[in-house]
Amino acid sequence: MSDLQEVKESPKESLSESLQQVISLLEKHRLIEDLVHKQDMPKHALIEQLVHKQNLIELQKKLDALHPADVAYILEALPLEDRLNLWDLVKADRDGEILLEVSDSVRQSLIADMEPEELLAAAEQLDTDELADLAPDLPKDVLQDLLDSLDTQNRERLQSTLSYPDDAVGALMDFDIVTIREDITLEVALRYLRRLGNLPDHTDKLFVVDRNDILRGVLPLTRMVVNDLDANVADVMVADAVAFHPEDVSDEAAQAFERYDLVTAPVVDANNKLVGRITVDAVMDYIRDESESDMLSMAGLREEEDFFASVWKSVQNRWAWLAINLVTAIVASRVIGLFEGSIEKIVALAALMPIVAGIGGNSGNQTTTMIVRGLALGQISSHNMHSLIKKELGVALLNGLLWGGVLGLIAYALYGNYQLGLVMTTAMTLNLLLAAVMGVMIPLMMNKLGRDPAVGTSVLITAMTDSGGFFIFLGLATIFLL
Amino acid sequence: MSDLQEVKESPKESLSESLQQVISLLEKHRLIEDLVHKQDMPKHALIEQLVHKQNLIELQKKLDALHPADVAYILEALPLEDRLNLWDLVKADRDGEILLEVSDSVRQSLIADMEPEELLAAAEQLDTDELADLAPDLPKDVLQDLLDSLDTQNRERLQSTLSYPDDAVGALMDFDIVTIREDITLEVALRYLRRLGNLPDHTDKLFVVDRNDILRGVLPLTRMVVNDLDANVADVMVADAVAFHPEDVSDEAAQAFERYDLVTAPVVDANNKLVGRITVDAVMDYIRDESESDMLSMAGLREEEDFFASVWKSVQNRWAWLAINLVTAIVASRVIGLFEGSIEKIVALAALMPIVAGIGGNSGNQTTTMIVRGLALGQISSHNMHSLIKKELGVALLNGLLWGGVLGLIAYALYGNYQLGLVMTTAMTLNLLLAAVMGVMIPLMMNKLGRDPAVGTSVLITAMTDSGGFFIFLGLATIFLL
Repeated sequence: MSDLQEVKESPKESLSESLQQVISLLEKHRLIEDLVHKQDMPKHALIEQLVHKQNLIELQKKLDALHPADVAYILEALPLEDRLNLWDLVKADRDGEILLEVSDSVRQSLIADMEPEELLAAAEQLDTDELADLAPDLPKDVLQDLLDSLDTQNRERLQSTLSYPDDAVGALMDFDIVTIREDITLEVALRYLRRLGNLPDHTDKLFVVDRNDILRGVLPLTRMVVNDLDANVADVMVADAVAFHPEDVSDEAAQAFERYDLVTAPVVDANNKLVGRITVDAVMDYIRDESESDMLSMAGLREEEDFFASVWKSVQNRWAWLAINLVTAIVASRVIGLFEGSIEKIVALAALMPIVAGIGGNSGNQTTTMIVRGLALGQISSHNMHSLIKKELGVALLNGLLWGGVLGLIAYALYGNYQLGLVMTTAMTLNLLLAAVMGVMIPLMMNKLGRDPAVGTSVLITAMTDSGGFFIFLGLATIFLL
Repeated sequence: MSDLQEVKESPKESLSESLQQVISLLEKHRLIEDLVHKQDMPKHALIEQLVHKQNLIELQKKLDALHPADVAYILEALPLEDRLNLWDLVKADRDGEILLEVSDSVRQSLIADMEPEELLAAAEQLDTDELADLAPDLPKDVLQDLLDSLDTQNRERLQSTLSYPDDAVGALMDFDIVTIREDITLEVALRYLRRLGNLPDHTDKLFVVDRNDILRGVLPLTRMVVNDLDANVADVMVADAVAFHPEDVSDEAAQAFERYDLVTAPVVDANNKLVGRITVDAVMDYIRDESESDMLSMAGLREEEDFFASVWKSVQNRWAWLAINLVTAIVASRVIGLFEGSIEKIVALAALMPIVAGIGGNSGNQTTTMIVRGLALGQISSHNMHSLIKKELGVALLNGLLWGGVLGLIAYALYGNYQLGLVMTTAMTLNLLLAAVMGVMIPLMMNKLGRDPAVGTSVLITAMTDSGGFFIFLGLATIFLL
């Protein structure tokens, strides 16, 4: 009955409830600590000590009942001090699993709080592919001790996984593969599985290999349980399964997982020898990470930032973008400086110029966002760049005449100068055309140069449309109005 | 051997090759059509007709060999005219599957090209949950015909799926469930499966129900194949499985899938009666759609836009944001207008003011991006808003003094006026503080009002930091420099 109770609960509700309970237990804990600090009468202290212990035991019980991913979620949502208090209460044998689940930045804060021996003990609970996720954050000496503690096969696996770049299939794969031969019957295969006793998580298929571990096909469990027991593996298996190479780009693997609705897929080397597998949960984590890092890098944040990181750490994370932004802003400011004479004569120019620059920037960023997305989906390449630019120029021309026209009228209404209105309309249209061309070209160029088109594109576009907008507007005004 | 050949190919390589082949076949096709148009000598026409036919047959063969998802990818990457040419060549019995795979906007362009009978025929090939994805894009009369053609159970399922909002579990679920009773042995269960003959895609577990379809637990296939055949289902099943309700928010289901590494999960009603299931591929599509729509809506794009949509359609997609942007830009311009007298006296103010506004905007957007992400991950709520604002204010103060100081020196160097430099530094610091407060408050407020914090937040922030920046800088200058 209590089991069914759990089935009924929606998982998120209970999770935020857990968070609330942990927070209130932590607050009680802090309250008592404060009390103990303030009054040091021995008798009182003794009672408080007891209440305190009770409280900690309750907290620990709560934590032990939670899934490692849920503990990770709660650790992420707590400010540093509370987080470390809680981390001390987590049972040592769960440290490894939980470290895997937290984000990079929170992981660093937890690792910084651990002794080398604790770290080594935590790492020893993990599989090789999990170790590979953790390894980059471990102190050098702990990593060395860890490598020394592994057997040859696992050490080689770990070193090979670490040798692939973060965005390669080799870095995503794990080694939890169950293989069978093609010349046995399903009955023999099932007997073999029953002898194994349990299968790795996410096993939805067995990998069929020959004696040299060359991949011959895959045998989905769904086919195993519906086919005749005396059928041969070779007759039931899927021979043309989608397979990946360790050096394949993860993006493409992720697209293939979505396209072909895969749960696991084999990873083979150049000789078609089976070396590992990818699972859908690794792919899903990858997609989530990628979309987050796209969003962050479009805003100029270099990496994942812990919400409760110190002010100083946050400044470091953000300074690079602000510095670039400062340079482009100064350039734009110098463009205006060229026309100070014109502004002195017609001060209305100063009030109107940010409109031209600002709308150009937004329009350019709309275009860029579309292109970055198209590049990520693999739908844009050189063959259709031509028609994209043509389309964006059309959109820009229409928007320029439309909104530029509106702005021209407003400028005329405000300053009673129809020539100023015409300059405004023309400048808007030209700047939107500039924004369209740059919005298509910049991400495509970045992509061609092998760089991530999301990173910094927004700064570049805005720099172009700001300086360009000021130059076009003030230039036209100087020619036609003075 | 040819099967193994396919295993060796990396899926994406062959996909972009396919795209190139289709494009070159289409070009040949167009070339011949042009030729036929230009010269109408009957003899020539006859030969060309033959070449033409040959060409189309080749194209059709190519298409038939591709996975529906791959055909969808190619359709997405083609301009409208080519896309419709190709669509005519797709075998009618694959229309339904392919329509499911293309994006919403491309789907609309394909459906607009189809006759009602063709649409009905395509729809009839699909499962109920797939129909539900297609239904919103179908013309009203086709949808009605379709509902009439379904049996009662499927009609009710379709209507119930359509009744849930896009972001509810009910809209994601499908009905491909295989159920068993808990009081039978694994041997009986396996015999039952063999009688079924095949299992729905993604089946990684069977759902264990009582005679009233009340969920008792789930039986993973991996447990089925490793346990003794005479064990009872009840002893082997997982009783406390994660389950969802149709009205649950999809975001939470997606987080649970990632957290607990699920492949499928049961969906139950308020009485714990099994009504459907969610699969990881539906969740993955959902995550991808969500992260895209977040990215698009932060740039003020209302919905997915077909890359080859007409100029007019694109203008409609983007106009709302540009109009809002126009209004905020005019407000900022009027703020400057208030200080035209000051600018006339010190024209340097006109050149410096965009720096203060621009850097404030960028800094505010960095903060907002962090908060939007934290809200999406469920890590930010009212309980830690306080410490977030404190941290962001700290970052802003440090950045303001640092970069504001640099800018103050530059202003002093350019214009030789140390008071101007001081005003610059102070204005920068104050505008960054404003950006920090707004960057935290606006997305949190949007969230509290039940709105998507990603939509339009960037416009609001920029509006605040532009108008605010101009006002602070020109105001301080008017007070201290005049």
